[in-house]
Amino acid sequence: MIILSNEEIESFLSIKTCIDALEKAYASWDKGTAINRPRTDLVMPSPSEAGVYAFKSMEAGLYDPPIVAMRINSDIIRWNQQGGRTIKTKIPAAPGDKYVGLVMLFSTVTGEPLAMFPDGVVQRMRVASSSALAARYLAREDASTMALFGSGWQAGSHVPAMCAVRPLKRINVYSPTKANREAFVKELQPKVSAELRAVDSPEEAIRDADIIAATTNSLTRVVSADWVKPGMHLTCVRVPELGDDTIRKVDRLVIHAHQHAPMNYVAGYGEAGIAAHDAIDIIKKGPAHAHEVNVEHPFWLSAPALKDLVTGKAQGRANAQESTCFLNNIGIGLQFAAVGAAVYSEAVAKGIGRELPTDWFLESVHP
Amino acid sequence: MIILSNEEIESFLSIKTCIDALEKAYASWDKGTAINRPRTDLVMPSPSEAGVYAFKSMEAGLYDPPIVAMRINSDIIRWNQQGGRTIKTKIPAAPGDKYVGLVMLFSTVTGEPLAMFPDGVVQRMRVASSSALAARYLAREDASTMALFGSGWQAGSHVPAMCAVRPLKRINVYSPTKANREAFVKELQPKVSAELRAVDSPEEAIRDADIIAATTNSLTRVVSADWVKPGMHLTCVRVPELGDDTIRKVDRLVIHAHQHAPMNYVAGYGEAGIAAHDAIDIIKKGPAHAHEVNVEHPFWLSAPALKDLVTGKAQGRANAQESTCFLNNIGIGLQFAAVGAAVYSEAVAKGIGRELPTDWFLESVHP
Repeated sequence: MIILSNEEIESFLSIKTCIDALEKAYASWDKGTAINRPRTDLVMPSPSEAGVYAFKSMEAGLYDPPIVAMRINSDIIRWNQQGGRTIKTKIPAAPGDKYVGLVMLFSTVTGEPLAMFPDGVVQRMRVASSSALAARYLAREDASTMALFGSGWQAGSHVPAMCAVRPLKRINVYSPTKANREAFVKELQPKVSAELRAVDSPEEAIRDADIIAATTNSLTRVVSADWVKPGMHLTCVRVPELGDDTIRKVDRLVIHAHQHAPMNYVAGYGEAGIAAHDAIDIIKKGPAHAHEVNVEHPFWLSAPALKDLVTGKAQGRANAQESTCFLNNIGIGLQFAAVGAAVYSEAVAKGIGRELPTDWFLESVHP
Repeated sequence: MIILSNEEIESFLSIKTCIDALEKAYASWDKGTAINRPRTDLVMPSPSEAGVYAFKSMEAGLYDPPIVAMRINSDIIRWNQQGGRTIKTKIPAAPGDKYVGLVMLFSTVTGEPLAMFPDGVVQRMRVASSSALAARYLAREDASTMALFGSGWQAGSHVPAMCAVRPLKRINVYSPTKANREAFVKELQPKVSAELRAVDSPEEAIRDADIIAATTNSLTRVVSADWVKPGMHLTCVRVPELGDDTIRKVDRLVIHAHQHAPMNYVAGYGEAGIAAHDAIDIIKKGPAHAHEVNVEHPFWLSAPALKDLVTGKAQGRANAQESTCFLNNIGIGLQFAAVGAAVYSEAVAKGIGRELPTDWFLESVHP
């Protein structure tokens, strides 16, 4: 059993490896040789004054490579009012002001634990890799210019990811703060051959863009429907970045997965799980009415999913003129299984990671 | 973060500690300061020829002590036909012919992982402790003789557990194989002041019994309804040990929890979870009909639960004459949180366990 760090994983994990691992995993899922458990959340009061406690888990298993991955988040969270909206933030409450997100891998041949590592790098890589995998099927093959909205870590992983699937020559980077977008360009430029440019307005970013990638943490739209042009491909990391009218306007829409709201188990709100986009929706209703929380089923949930693209059950881009869009609507355990298996296999091949005796985690007694 | 072994846990964990921890946890659950996620199972083909792969997970959190426990089982399983029944067995496929069952504890104050250990000892202790806790409310206070069916590890943990809550003077042990019951008595006698006797027939076991404890792995009845007498308390670790007519005959019935069949996610059987007592029920139906699996809701599911006893919402034994019964119908994550928290607190106090740097499991990046 090996323990890896985010830094170690970042040192060897290539975006190409992730994209290929995901492509194979989605196909297996469709074929019935992989399985995925949707996310569940436990929410409860914390003796900490910083917020409430939330425990998130999801897992998935593959037949080839024979691995199960469980992804766990153990968070102190807080909901703040911001511009009329309720925003959830994570508080780094662990020693050293840190977060707690973990991936555990198990062998489906022997059952034994194989590896354990923080989820941060894999979390970023899997989001960008899924976007890139979708772009492999949906973006024009000759796409050369990308407008990138955002200068955070999702933006950072999307630069090499999109360059891995399309021959991008130019990436126009826009984010509201000039210093941020300039620092971003400086940091990312060495990693790709495409020319990165920090631009001063959204309009400048989208000029001649073949691909628009929204990679922000915004809960409101950053893309205008007016920007959708024939032949263009749009992608996002959160649905609200695009807005309904943009999503409706494209000729071809694909979403990540048909899963939607996780099951929430909230202390004081009964024993049964309640489906909700965010536990705050349950808490706002109050214990007596929590079961009335309605999970909105948005219109785009009927679009085909990424696994349908990969298996050819859904058509990819049909011609150079149509506009296409990939909605990265939800994260799933399957991504952690696919990318996690790749991390494990490379770490073992390269001899990276701290080894712990596997026997510490096994038992002779029948549990 | 500490790693503990089953042997270490066994060396310090007392049954009294477990019973008290559980009593507090059930009360918290009822009060709404604890929360429990029901078990889910992932089932998929394994490249191993030994069987199929199953990943079981459940978790629960407490406000006081502020801990979340996740319990994981990573198993190779096989279904065998045995006397017209389908029996599930676990194959010890991990290195050294071992099993993989783990408990992970997290702090709900900081989110950080606190401990990780094999689940075997805690698994046994929590079953027996729940039985004993129920007996504290349901058995006659002067109960002095117990008939114990079984000589395996559940039987072994029930001896000190029941002695901890009632002033037992004699325990009659019956199991089909003479050598097993005699070895059991020899092994357990030093642990309690009650006199243990291996007896040659079930009838001899139940003579003058105030309590009948069925602690076998039998899927068919080991207790006859004719044995139920006024003032008697019955307890079991599996529902089929008692049989419906026995359960119907008692004056007062309490079950462990109102949870019933776990959600199963089976590779090749769609994306949605299917409630089933055992994944084999789904597999037998075949992919096209898996959604038709009907989970039987037995009549006893309407009885009050252990947490209702603890909080006084359900009446315990009302008089010396009535017969009572506790059905240990299902295991829940809450038991692992309660007992796990006690394990952690004692291990820290006694300085037991291997310490790993918690920082290995934390991250600075926002996951």
